[in-house]
Amino acid sequence: MATSQPNTSPRNRLSRRAAKSQAPTDAQSVDQEFAAESHDQVHLDTSLLREMLLGSYAEERTESRELIKDPQFHHVPGRTKEEQRERTFEALKQLAGSDAVMAGLPTTQGGGGQPGAYVASFEEFVLADASLQIKAGVQWGLFGSAVLNLGTETHHNKWLADIWSLRIPGSFAMTEIGHGSDVASIATTATYDPATEEFEIHTPFRAAWKDYLGNAAVHARAAVVFAQLITGGVNHGVHALYVPIRDENGEFLPGIAGEDDGYKGGLNGVDNGRLCFTHVRVPRENLLDRYGHVEPDGTYSSPISSPGRRFFTMLGTLVQGRVSLDGSAVVATRAGLAIALTYANERRQFAPVPGQPERVLLDYTRHRRRLFPYVARVLAAGFAHEELLVAYDDVFSGRADNDDARQDLETLAAAMKATSTRLALDSLQECREACGGAGFLSANRITDLRHDMDVYATFEGDNTVLMQLVAKRLLGDHAKEFARMDVGVMARWVADRAAETAVNRSGLRGLSQVFRDSADPRRSVNALRDPETQRTLLTDRVRSMIGEVAENMRGAGKGSPEATAEAFDRNQHRLIEAAKAHAHLLQWEAFTRALEKVEDPGTHQVLLWLRDLFGLSVIEADLDWYLSHGRMSLMRGRMVESYVDRLVTRLRPHIMDVVEAFDFAPEHLRAEIATGAEAKRQQEAADWVAAERAAGRWPRSEKA
Amino acid sequence: MATSQPNTSPRNRLSRRAAKSQAPTDAQSVDQEFAAESHDQVHLDTSLLREMLLGSYAEERTESRELIKDPQFHHVPGRTKEEQRERTFEALKQLAGSDAVMAGLPTTQGGGGQPGAYVASFEEFVLADASLQIKAGVQWGLFGSAVLNLGTETHHNKWLADIWSLRIPGSFAMTEIGHGSDVASIATTATYDPATEEFEIHTPFRAAWKDYLGNAAVHARAAVVFAQLITGGVNHGVHALYVPIRDENGEFLPGIAGEDDGYKGGLNGVDNGRLCFTHVRVPRENLLDRYGHVEPDGTYSSPISSPGRRFFTMLGTLVQGRVSLDGSAVVATRAGLAIALTYANERRQFAPVPGQPERVLLDYTRHRRRLFPYVARVLAAGFAHEELLVAYDDVFSGRADNDDARQDLETLAAAMKATSTRLALDSLQECREACGGAGFLSANRITDLRHDMDVYATFEGDNTVLMQLVAKRLLGDHAKEFARMDVGVMARWVADRAAETAVNRSGLRGLSQVFRDSADPRRSVNALRDPETQRTLLTDRVRSMIGEVAENMRGAGKGSPEATAEAFDRNQHRLIEAAKAHAHLLQWEAFTRALEKVEDPGTHQVLLWLRDLFGLSVIEADLDWYLSHGRMSLMRGRMVESYVDRLVTRLRPHIMDVVEAFDFAPEHLRAEIATGAEAKRQQEAADWVAAERAAGRWPRSEKA
Repeated sequence: MATSQPNTSPRNRLSRRAAKSQAPTDAQSVDQEFAAESHDQVHLDTSLLREMLLGSYAEERTESRELIKDPQFHHVPGRTKEEQRERTFEALKQLAGSDAVMAGLPTTQGGGGQPGAYVASFEEFVLADASLQIKAGVQWGLFGSAVLNLGTETHHNKWLADIWSLRIPGSFAMTEIGHGSDVASIATTATYDPATEEFEIHTPFRAAWKDYLGNAAVHARAAVVFAQLITGGVNHGVHALYVPIRDENGEFLPGIAGEDDGYKGGLNGVDNGRLCFTHVRVPRENLLDRYGHVEPDGTYSSPISSPGRRFFTMLGTLVQGRVSLDGSAVVATRAGLAIALTYANERRQFAPVPGQPERVLLDYTRHRRRLFPYVARVLAAGFAHEELLVAYDDVFSGRADNDDARQDLETLAAAMKATSTRLALDSLQECREACGGAGFLSANRITDLRHDMDVYATFEGDNTVLMQLVAKRLLGDHAKEFARMDVGVMARWVADRAAETAVNRSGLRGLSQVFRDSADPRRSVNALRDPETQRTLLTDRVRSMIGEVAENMRGAGKGSPEATAEAFDRNQHRLIEAAKAHAHLLQWEAFTRALEKVEDPGTHQVLLWLRDLFGLSVIEADLDWYLSHGRMSLMRGRMVESYVDRLVTRLRPHIMDVVEAFDFAPEHLRAEIATGAEAKRQQEAADWVAAERAAGRWPRSEKA
Repeated sequence: MATSQPNTSPRNRLSRRAAKSQAPTDAQSVDQEFAAESHDQVHLDTSLLREMLLGSYAEERTESRELIKDPQFHHVPGRTKEEQRERTFEALKQLAGSDAVMAGLPTTQGGGGQPGAYVASFEEFVLADASLQIKAGVQWGLFGSAVLNLGTETHHNKWLADIWSLRIPGSFAMTEIGHGSDVASIATTATYDPATEEFEIHTPFRAAWKDYLGNAAVHARAAVVFAQLITGGVNHGVHALYVPIRDENGEFLPGIAGEDDGYKGGLNGVDNGRLCFTHVRVPRENLLDRYGHVEPDGTYSSPISSPGRRFFTMLGTLVQGRVSLDGSAVVATRAGLAIALTYANERRQFAPVPGQPERVLLDYTRHRRRLFPYVARVLAAGFAHEELLVAYDDVFSGRADNDDARQDLETLAAAMKATSTRLALDSLQECREACGGAGFLSANRITDLRHDMDVYATFEGDNTVLMQLVAKRLLGDHAKEFARMDVGVMARWVADRAAETAVNRSGLRGLSQVFRDSADPRRSVNALRDPETQRTLLTDRVRSMIGEVAENMRGAGKGSPEATAEAFDRNQHRLIEAAKAHAHLLQWEAFTRALEKVEDPGTHQVLLWLRDLFGLSVIEADLDWYLSHGRMSLMRGRMVESYVDRLVTRLRPHIMDVVEAFDFAPEHLRAEIATGAEAKRQQEAADWVAAERAAGRWPRSEKA
């Protein structure tokens, strides 16, 4: 699409622009907006936005995108799973040893020691083939990272080089048929035998078979196997062990059995499969023992005394997968939107005025309404992802590695992954339908992209389970707020609850506001575009919902465990909604922070509209809550729809600039309808009709 | 799943049950509900519901389901498009001559003359393979029906027998690359040449290539080609002609060219392709001339003088496709829900109380919330579809064929097809995610089903375009209401508008209601479960939105065509929302009518809850509108969520009975997770753990 730009750092460009003009405040922009409408002066600097979107790892992303222009990496529809798997494996071999892959290895192991750069590079692979991203993720992000993060130096020296060079293709054997996201309950056992100084890995029943494991059906020679570690008759909980599973000829080693997961709804370049272990013995040293060690005599020790905390610490080292899925969901969403918007900007359908040219799809309000809010959402998701990536790099580079930072990172990654993978699925579906029949052809890419992304919603943590984790964290934070017993906080809380109760009893809260702005729609609109209004609404929703659940659970917490469980279940729906609201708030804040850094007035203005579109489309989706809880007057509520309509109309002249800033080359999109072919066909048709008319050959209409 | 039941007609069963007990009124049921909760007496008669769902064509549906148990008809994942196409074509040959297929031919042509029965049989094919349904639909429903409905006796005698026997596989060449749902603007021409008494079919430019045509890539020997009919220098608009396109060896005839659409996002058993005609000549008699005839000298005549009405009449004969898609979307949705609910009823995940057994997914509120509203929706869609099918049969059997009935049928079919295909996509996605990783495996069917259904949203009329048609009809009806100038209607309208304006100005409307029920949540809930409240809310929304748009457009209508077009565009989003609301109202009414016929108290009670769940989940989705337009008090608005929560909990013990009434055999679902395998695995695991504990081998927990 856009031609390549010299790689100037965002910082420099920003300062350069700053010298030229003063950025407007949000308040000023309200006025400027009207001025701009009449003077048509607003112009988005596409190279500036492009740099913002490339983010902190611009160079790595650009390199990665260059690399994957090579057709050998591209998904080709219609191949059998066997072909796809082999092609993907071959592609992986090409990647092994590259800067992108080596960045994930610490410098002590000869790697680049740049976890953030590594993840950023991988995220772009989704443009070539999601299977490539995921198979690479399985090899280096899961299997390799488990050895790296759960193992110790001996393990690193023994296996990391071969894993990184792909001499040992491996599998990450965590999930079991009977236990998906509930890892603590897996049933595979690793029982220590001091007589031989070995662990015996065993699958006691069918439900304990490992399942959905990438690389397991064909390519893996070894696996990191998660199992209940038992020594001296005590179960120390889930630990990871390095287990060879296939010989040089690809045959299973004694005691190992497996099955192929077969065809899937997508991602068929990854050979998912099942594994079963029948009394398989590995040396004691194969326990990846950074967080749990067994002495030759069977004595267990761990640097983390609480089994619960130990479990979560071990799992926490695997956050990389979620970070990477968040980023690739953003990339895939942008690609889908770039295809659908390019087509909608050229495709004509129906002549609203008989006899006049047919109208371009993007000139229909409804079509803008369908697609533009997704543009706003993917921008928000992208800005939030950049912050997540930096947080990830801070922790995993060791620069800022502590318990609090890790917990924040995990919560953030869970919230972002669940939100952006949902966004990818919803937006790709809308893109597919917005392109009509053309959207259904594999030649236009969207369906294949969506098929692959489908599983992103449930792997590396089911989105529902992840959102529940986020909600629990929010509940915990809420409880802490009470625990501190800060009088101010407490007083505010009680006052809020009193107001809330008043609403519940009388429905009267917010009435004063109803009267205040009810006569003036413009005042309502101005309030909605005020970032403080948006922030307050979004924040208040999270706080109120969590507060409400906390209150509902307070009594229950003192009852039996059953009563607590029941109370939690009764509030589960609301908790997950609160977690979603929280994720949207985080994205809104990230968007706003990104916006505040932009000094070019035109770019600032367009991004401001898009930020508002994000905020208001999120508020619009939950408008019933804001209204029924008295957070917004009825008049203001009705204004949300109109204002979103106005925003999408204002954004019409700028939306293709945003697409240009996504900066996809034809080799990345590979969609016939995004090549300009549609416009060419229409020009040919229009020229033909004009020539026929000129030649007097155009038939009269019966109607005339 | 359920064992087969003797085929008793619903009428008989209903009367038999009526003798046993008296059905409750809606008012009584409110009390009974509480009684039932404590006494657990409510029982759904699954065979009764099964018969209700099989509907008017129970016998044909049952036969069709029996037929497709044969594996030769089943979709098998991983086949190339070439294999799939050949398998589907072979399957079609098996079907040719069957009662199901012959039912679509009039008795005068040796057929069964039962259009409704014919469509009903075809709808079930989706359980074997959506490609089978669609390829059969292309051959007999589109190609064959075009000859039947647009041709006259000579055409029937010449071609119908061979089309029905599949001796002439054919294509329906309507859509062009440049014009999807805008058929009136297609650019292929059929120019009459009186010198040779032939039509010359011509494709003037690339955008006019016919595209997405089933059977066109490989199998079609002939096509019904839609083209602008030009004779004597006058364009009489779109007409259909019978055009041979391939010889006995499958080679294109002179002047015909084609392309393969290649892989698609699904439905790869249908060979979609493109066709191009370069000055192809066919005899004058090949014009399917029921609605437009050309004399040897080139004189044009038509029984319908208005070109616009003629066009819509011709297109109207093709409503069968939409009726059939509506029905198959219902069948596919039920299949997805049957798989996901069966799994959710067995699958355990997480132990809410430590040490106790893990909880079954359906015992989580959130999981019920995800799936049960779709059960309510597919029931509503199914009841509405049965009414649509009867209306279709009334018109196309000739029993009640008139302009009004045809227009109603078209509006109904457009509204229902757009709603149920949306439902299928949304619900299958939720089913897929609700099954976690297992839902992504082809072995569990859901993804393949969803991939196929994807295109149902945009073919046979893009859903957005269809909803716009529905909205235009509603606007027209609204205008007619004014045209009649009935004083009562007019007075009511003015009064309503006054009240509406009052809301807009002050946000005060509905305040009296706010006070009336604000202090008593139970009163709010009772109001919500009152069918008249639901009906009023749903009706009022349609009426108000259409009225609002009509008012917005009133001034614009007197301006230039451009101003009218702009006004229409500004209101497009709202119009489409109004059409959706209208479709939901129609479904609600169909559900309510079906409910009123049920005399068995237990079945009535469960279906009443499901009807309420349908009504309230639809209202919940648009709650912001009801609140912001003063149609519901804030208190009542907040109660909707709680009442939906209560409904899904009440329905928990009955939901698997509803699934049983869907009456799918394992050969229809073909999903490993719907076979009871999960429950078996869990029992094996539980037994193993119990045995280990009993033998004293169970390790102590480190936590203990």
